[in-house]
Amino acid sequence: MATIVFCTANRTAQTTARRCLTTHLTGLASARESHLPFSSTHSHSVTLLPGTRWFSRGTGVRFMSHGTAGRSAAGRTRRGALALSGAAAVTAAAAVAGFLANANHFQRAEMATRVSQAAEEEEQEGDILARCRRFMSPPVTDTSVLQQRKMEMRTRMEMLIMETQADFCRALQEVDGGTFKVDRWDRKEGGGGISCVMQDGKVFEKAGVNVSVVFGNLTEEAAKQMRSRGKVLKGKDGKLPFCAMGVSSVIHPKNPHIPTVHFNYRYFEVEEEDGTKQWWFGGGTDLTPVYINKEDAFHFHNTLKEACDKHHPQYYPDFKKWCDRYFYIRHRGETRGIGGIFFDDLDSPSQEEAFNFVKSCARTVVPCYLPIVYKHLNDSFTDEEKDWQQVRRGRYVEFNLVYDRGVKFGLATPGSRIESILMSLPLTARWEYMHEPAKGTIEAEMLEVLRNPKDWV
Amino acid sequence: MATIVFCTANRTAQTTARRCLTTHLTGLASARESHLPFSSTHSHSVTLLPGTRWFSRGTGVRFMSHGTAGRSAAGRTRRGALALSGAAAVTAAAAVAGFLANANHFQRAEMATRVSQAAEEEEQEGDILARCRRFMSPPVTDTSVLQQRKMEMRTRMEMLIMETQADFCRALQEVDGGTFKVDRWDRKEGGGGISCVMQDGKVFEKAGVNVSVVFGNLTEEAAKQMRSRGKVLKGKDGKLPFCAMGVSSVIHPKNPHIPTVHFNYRYFEVEEEDGTKQWWFGGGTDLTPVYINKEDAFHFHNTLKEACDKHHPQYYPDFKKWCDRYFYIRHRGETRGIGGIFFDDLDSPSQEEAFNFVKSCARTVVPCYLPIVYKHLNDSFTDEEKDWQQVRRGRYVEFNLVYDRGVKFGLATPGSRIESILMSLPLTARWEYMHEPAKGTIEAEMLEVLRNPKDWV
Repeated sequence: MATIVFCTANRTAQTTARRCLTTHLTGLASARESHLPFSSTHSHSVTLLPGTRWFSRGTGVRFMSHGTAGRSAAGRTRRGALALSGAAAVTAAAAVAGFLANANHFQRAEMATRVSQAAEEEEQEGDILARCRRFMSPPVTDTSVLQQRKMEMRTRMEMLIMETQADFCRALQEVDGGTFKVDRWDRKEGGGGISCVMQDGKVFEKAGVNVSVVFGNLTEEAAKQMRSRGKVLKGKDGKLPFCAMGVSSVIHPKNPHIPTVHFNYRYFEVEEEDGTKQWWFGGGTDLTPVYINKEDAFHFHNTLKEACDKHHPQYYPDFKKWCDRYFYIRHRGETRGIGGIFFDDLDSPSQEEAFNFVKSCARTVVPCYLPIVYKHLNDSFTDEEKDWQQVRRGRYVEFNLVYDRGVKFGLATPGSRIESILMSLPLTARWEYMHEPAKGTIEAEMLEVLRNPKDWV
Repeated sequence: MATIVFCTANRTAQTTARRCLTTHLTGLASARESHLPFSSTHSHSVTLLPGTRWFSRGTGVRFMSHGTAGRSAAGRTRRGALALSGAAAVTAAAAVAGFLANANHFQRAEMATRVSQAAEEEEQEGDILARCRRFMSPPVTDTSVLQQRKMEMRTRMEMLIMETQADFCRALQEVDGGTFKVDRWDRKEGGGGISCVMQDGKVFEKAGVNVSVVFGNLTEEAAKQMRSRGKVLKGKDGKLPFCAMGVSSVIHPKNPHIPTVHFNYRYFEVEEEDGTKQWWFGGGTDLTPVYINKEDAFHFHNTLKEACDKHHPQYYPDFKKWCDRYFYIRHRGETRGIGGIFFDDLDSPSQEEAFNFVKSCARTVVPCYLPIVYKHLNDSFTDEEKDWQQVRRGRYVEFNLVYDRGVKFGLATPGSRIESILMSLPLTARWEYMHEPAKGTIEAEMLEVLRNPKDWV
């Protein structure tokens, strides 16, 4: 297994970012804001941090392009780079801008989402090499292969998951000041993956964003297990050529007022005996707060609902319920968190439409979550609040090890990369015997929600 | 579910014990030893702590009788009380004595074990009420019922597991200075249990000792699952009256140089259609150190071997291998710890012989473990050693939630008491991404042993 580390910012940039973050954490953000010409709407770029520039496009919302310091000179950061960066990075930047302006985080995130849709339309899926330059690592599949079959769904999906990884990692690095460790690994039987992990950062206790692209032959039994509806697939001599890929992430912040987020978007292809290809998508994004904050819950669910509603009015209500059912810790009688959306076996109305829906979901990850992170960055917390977070982390471990289908499948599969499967576990967790919050406390309020899932929008 | 708390020592005794412990922990034990007339072999008793007396029986090894302060006057503590206390409590006391005398812990433990065998012979199994007085709580089965059928195996086993719980809890309280919280709970379908938990003590991060005695009707499928050989049992209309009982314990100390210990001894009875009773015993004791200490490993395994050898020369070698196989974290390619013994489905050579073997094992718990606790009580440790302990705790959680048959069975059984099942989880644990100790370190030495189980005796 080859291990490589890509740094996306140079040393000076990191140092500056860390210093800024320290300022956030000590509650002196206002002292910093005075450096930033937020109210200006000039169309020129303003250097904020080395390797990072802010763009104004006349909308009152600023865009940040993540420079590729270390691989390109700062001078090469240009408007064109923005078009390549994908919508999610744009919205991350907008979230930062919103935070710095001390405005309503969610209003700004919403504006950014709208603008990002326009940017998305400009995007050319075809320019493989240029898009790859932004990734955390070269893609799993060789770029020459990706170029040869650039219109195939497996290529389009691999590009989407690599982009989602890059956008999310950069947005997290920006707020944390730390750098992701990037591990590239190969699977003996075919394919491999790229695991990005940031551990013990300023903001994040543990942040993992994993991409995997694997292929080979499945047994009919294994193929059936991979699909939640368990459809029987007929292989040649019992073997089915398959390809499976996905991006998944779990982010555990240090501050108990910043929730944990998880998302996963995946695509499967299986070739049957007669040569027909079965394909389906799956995925979801869900939030696990330690304390209930109704404004955060509304923002998170509403952002997901808007992404869903563009594709089908039943997607959000159906996938919200599916999420509450799936992330249920049966032996505790509690959901893991306040949910979000979850779906599997999506193979309608067409491959193109299903992919577009998944793309909308993947690009909603940053605007769903980052505004909440920025909003609570300066929240103070007590030892008791930290303890409660640790107890909830314990429940997270229980769900992941006892019920999560992906983890169970991974642990039972010989040759799978355990460190990538278990990177979803928190850095620290706690199990207190007979822990039951006293009535009327905010901890009891949280439990009440976990025991009786609510509608948030 | 009723919750009751029994205190086994009065406030003054606890305060004194705690003060003594603080002295241990600050490395000033020698200052304390001068208070203790260890070299004396007079046959009178010496008051050490209020509610605790030391007895000498002319062997050079001192015995401690745990007074029942709060339920009886200190003056009632007498030699007779010793005969009632069971051999294990005696050996715990001997271990304490060994520690205080600054002698070889293991030599003293061995002597104590020999002496305790003599004491055991004095013990009258029949005196139910007198024996119950020493328990952490009244037994699950009503004492009048126990007296009525005192010669039945289910009564003898219930008395043994209650005694094992009391002996082990008292030995742990003695070293920690803390008090177990005792929860008594009922099972709607029949039976109940007694959970003793001490959390965040001076020495122990989390110590749980659980007894359960449950009965009712099993389906044929469930009966098959309860037995590792999966023997088919024929019920009346598919139902099998059953009775299952056991004592189980997991002790997680704070100091990374004191290992975690686990034991479990259990008994099953199932009545078939034709009225014949199937019965079997299961159990085991195993050690999970954070660092390898060959002397500790030898003492632990040798104490178990001696208990086994009294019954059958193949028990230790067979059950040692079974233990290494059972406590294996497959996805990590590591055993959970350095093993011990593990057996199941034991129904030969006779019920009497099998019970006697289980009794020997149960009474070996204290002399197996306590001398190791006392030996390392004053060991200093670094932050790095504490971190490594936390990483190993994470592996403990992985084993218990992913593989442990008892936990899986418990979590899947509606109406089971989750807090008692999961009290085996540590108070705190840690998951570091890609944690791999550097070659040549003591952490790497530990991993090497976990990857290639050794013979210790």
